[in-house]
Amino acid sequence: MLSINENYLKLNENYLFSDIAKKVAAYEKENPEKEIIRLGIGDVTLPLAPAIIEALHIAVDEQSNPATFRGYSPDLGYSFLRELIAEKDFTDHGCEVYSDEIFVSDGAKSDSGNIQEIFGQDVIVALGDPVYPVYLDSNTMSGRTGVYDEATGKFSGIVYLPTSAENNFVPSLPSRHADLIYLCYPNNPTGTTLTKDELQAWVDYANEEKAVIIFDAAYEAYISEENIPHSIYECEGARTCAIEIRSFSKIAGFTGLRLGFTVVPKDLLVDGHSVRDLWARRHGTKFNGAPYIIQRAGAAVYTEEGQKQIAEQITYYMNNAKVIREGLIASGFEVFGGINAPYVWLKTPEGMGSWEFFDFLLKNAQIVGTPGSGFGPSGEGYFRLTGFGNAEKTQEAVRRITQLFAV
Amino acid sequence: MLSINENYLKLNENYLFSDIAKKVAAYEKENPEKEIIRLGIGDVTLPLAPAIIEALHIAVDEQSNPATFRGYSPDLGYSFLRELIAEKDFTDHGCEVYSDEIFVSDGAKSDSGNIQEIFGQDVIVALGDPVYPVYLDSNTMSGRTGVYDEATGKFSGIVYLPTSAENNFVPSLPSRHADLIYLCYPNNPTGTTLTKDELQAWVDYANEEKAVIIFDAAYEAYISEENIPHSIYECEGARTCAIEIRSFSKIAGFTGLRLGFTVVPKDLLVDGHSVRDLWARRHGTKFNGAPYIIQRAGAAVYTEEGQKQIAEQITYYMNNAKVIREGLIASGFEVFGGINAPYVWLKTPEGMGSWEFFDFLLKNAQIVGTPGSGFGPSGEGYFRLTGFGNAEKTQEAVRRITQLFAV
Repeated sequence: MLSINENYLKLNENYLFSDIAKKVAAYEKENPEKEIIRLGIGDVTLPLAPAIIEALHIAVDEQSNPATFRGYSPDLGYSFLRELIAEKDFTDHGCEVYSDEIFVSDGAKSDSGNIQEIFGQDVIVALGDPVYPVYLDSNTMSGRTGVYDEATGKFSGIVYLPTSAENNFVPSLPSRHADLIYLCYPNNPTGTTLTKDELQAWVDYANEEKAVIIFDAAYEAYISEENIPHSIYECEGARTCAIEIRSFSKIAGFTGLRLGFTVVPKDLLVDGHSVRDLWARRHGTKFNGAPYIIQRAGAAVYTEEGQKQIAEQITYYMNNAKVIREGLIASGFEVFGGINAPYVWLKTPEGMGSWEFFDFLLKNAQIVGTPGSGFGPSGEGYFRLTGFGNAEKTQEAVRRITQLFAV
Repeated sequence: MLSINENYLKLNENYLFSDIAKKVAAYEKENPEKEIIRLGIGDVTLPLAPAIIEALHIAVDEQSNPATFRGYSPDLGYSFLRELIAEKDFTDHGCEVYSDEIFVSDGAKSDSGNIQEIFGQDVIVALGDPVYPVYLDSNTMSGRTGVYDEATGKFSGIVYLPTSAENNFVPSLPSRHADLIYLCYPNNPTGTTLTKDELQAWVDYANEEKAVIIFDAAYEAYISEENIPHSIYECEGARTCAIEIRSFSKIAGFTGLRLGFTVVPKDLLVDGHSVRDLWARRHGTKFNGAPYIIQRAGAAVYTEEGQKQIAEQITYYMNNAKVIREGLIASGFEVFGGINAPYVWLKTPEGMGSWEFFDFLLKNAQIVGTPGSGFGPSGEGYFRLTGFGNAEKTQEAVRRITQLFAV
């Protein structure tokens, strides 16, 4: 009999960012004269860098010429891009990663949602808490998360890895066995990081427990401090237990271009099966490559000019994060992140709940942020602001908050 | 315990087009002096039309300007594109389809691979035979296909809908109940079509049996004859039982740009659940929109200029198909398709197997086609040639075949 995928019914009714959009739209309608500042969703605001624009124009012209026209791209991505990635992102930093272990995709969201599919139905999933919601939702859709408990905000089948100010945002190793472990560092939403030793402990755990780590490094380009790993392959033994997901969205403003990649080392075997080959098969069956012109734009990121220009953009966003961070600290807030990531994570004042503070800030300062509880139960009582906004508006937002919470 | 998705092990070892590529590479290595003509894979060869190139350049420039820069696109796609699609592809042709039932994606391959995910694990799948391999492979990956029988080339769990010269390529309604029915018309690989009455019978069957039809209309723009439906929504009752998948790849040369869309009518309910809402949830969780610049390129397809230019390209490819079709008929081949689709489907001569004929044609005429058996067991003894090649080379290929099989 025809039926739907019942697992979809276990998903929370609404997606975090849709809920926010609805609340903001309702407020705007009632207060059309108020100027709202959006520091909620993690979308970039600076236009694409000139080197990327130039590469796009050149590639578009190639598509207009019979001699240079390109149709279907290779399943894994064009080798001109995969080889650049292998060299510039990994080999140059002492990491062993080969170009045929790199799968170019239309972004980290697709990859982090789809990667679970190549693993067994019964694998036990462990998740950072709070973390990017796609890991949980994609495993819920696949029926791995069990029963949702309204009281705790947790699924019975998931091993949560709680982080908060209490453990300095360093998750403890799981108290029960986990097979598939999602880690995101620099972390979305908290903006916090793990040191190399701390990440090494996870790699060691995964190798001992025969687990696989899905390491989401979408924000690695924002790392400013020493001793914070940019890649999990900086850790010894990671090639036998770790998959890494990267994105061009946040490092080069590709949120509207869609480009990312996933690294699956050939040394990663499960029951003797090459996980790389499984992912290649999925990629080849349900995806048809990222657009040629956008892979060319990705290659432009690695040019000298491109590197210089995206570094300026990152500096711009990180300066916003600094402005938020310092302004909030001066107003007496307890603040985390914002040093190695464009996200500032704050403890809500006066014991307000995350959504309570969202409403308070929207109503009293016309600022849109993201309630921490939307990223997991341990996010309750926290709130995320992002450095991706316009510099002047970010300063204005901080000025408004400072006035509200003058100490 | 960590495990892989065991269903992946049921997939045929190799993908049809990889096998072909390997054989061709081996032949080329041994015969470097021979000029090979590729009429195998269904990739376009004409460069993008000027109206599309112009739209891409304009959109790229918008991405360089802070005032017009666009980041994340809306989940369903930009309304400028969805509204054009609803009007030009459906309303203008008397079909009831609304813009909020259209989901813009990175292509028909992704959509036709992913759509099965929103249905239950136990639904019974029926498939055209022969047909585009992604429907079968994606359901195999999801564990719906049962056991593979080497002798028949069939999976125990699949309801095959065989078509061949014997039934004039019109499949009979399933002999046992099916829940999810994949139909592709104009058909890839046979190039044959259903009349409106024939398709209406499938819609009636689906409504009676409470089944859903996944209708892949990727080649609709190639239809030249009257009374062949371009959309399943031309049939009465299709809004309660049919999903339609479309692609810009073949109608406007977007194989390297990646753009398609899927229509899920709001009237399509399963157990009271809106299938549209389930697909929206999948789209929102595991996909982040098609690139803005490529959605703008898609919109350019619908301009007067764009329509004129892509019509010229379609004429070019269909003329190739005509050249192949008529040349083969003159050489005594039994030939199908090539009138409402760019694919010519021929019965292999002298009782050769599909792969046997592949090898014969490569060795004796240096022509690459696609063995029919790669599209399903009923494709055995058939062979596909495509009209997507260069006109001169296509003529040369036909000349070579004519010489080999002079009557």
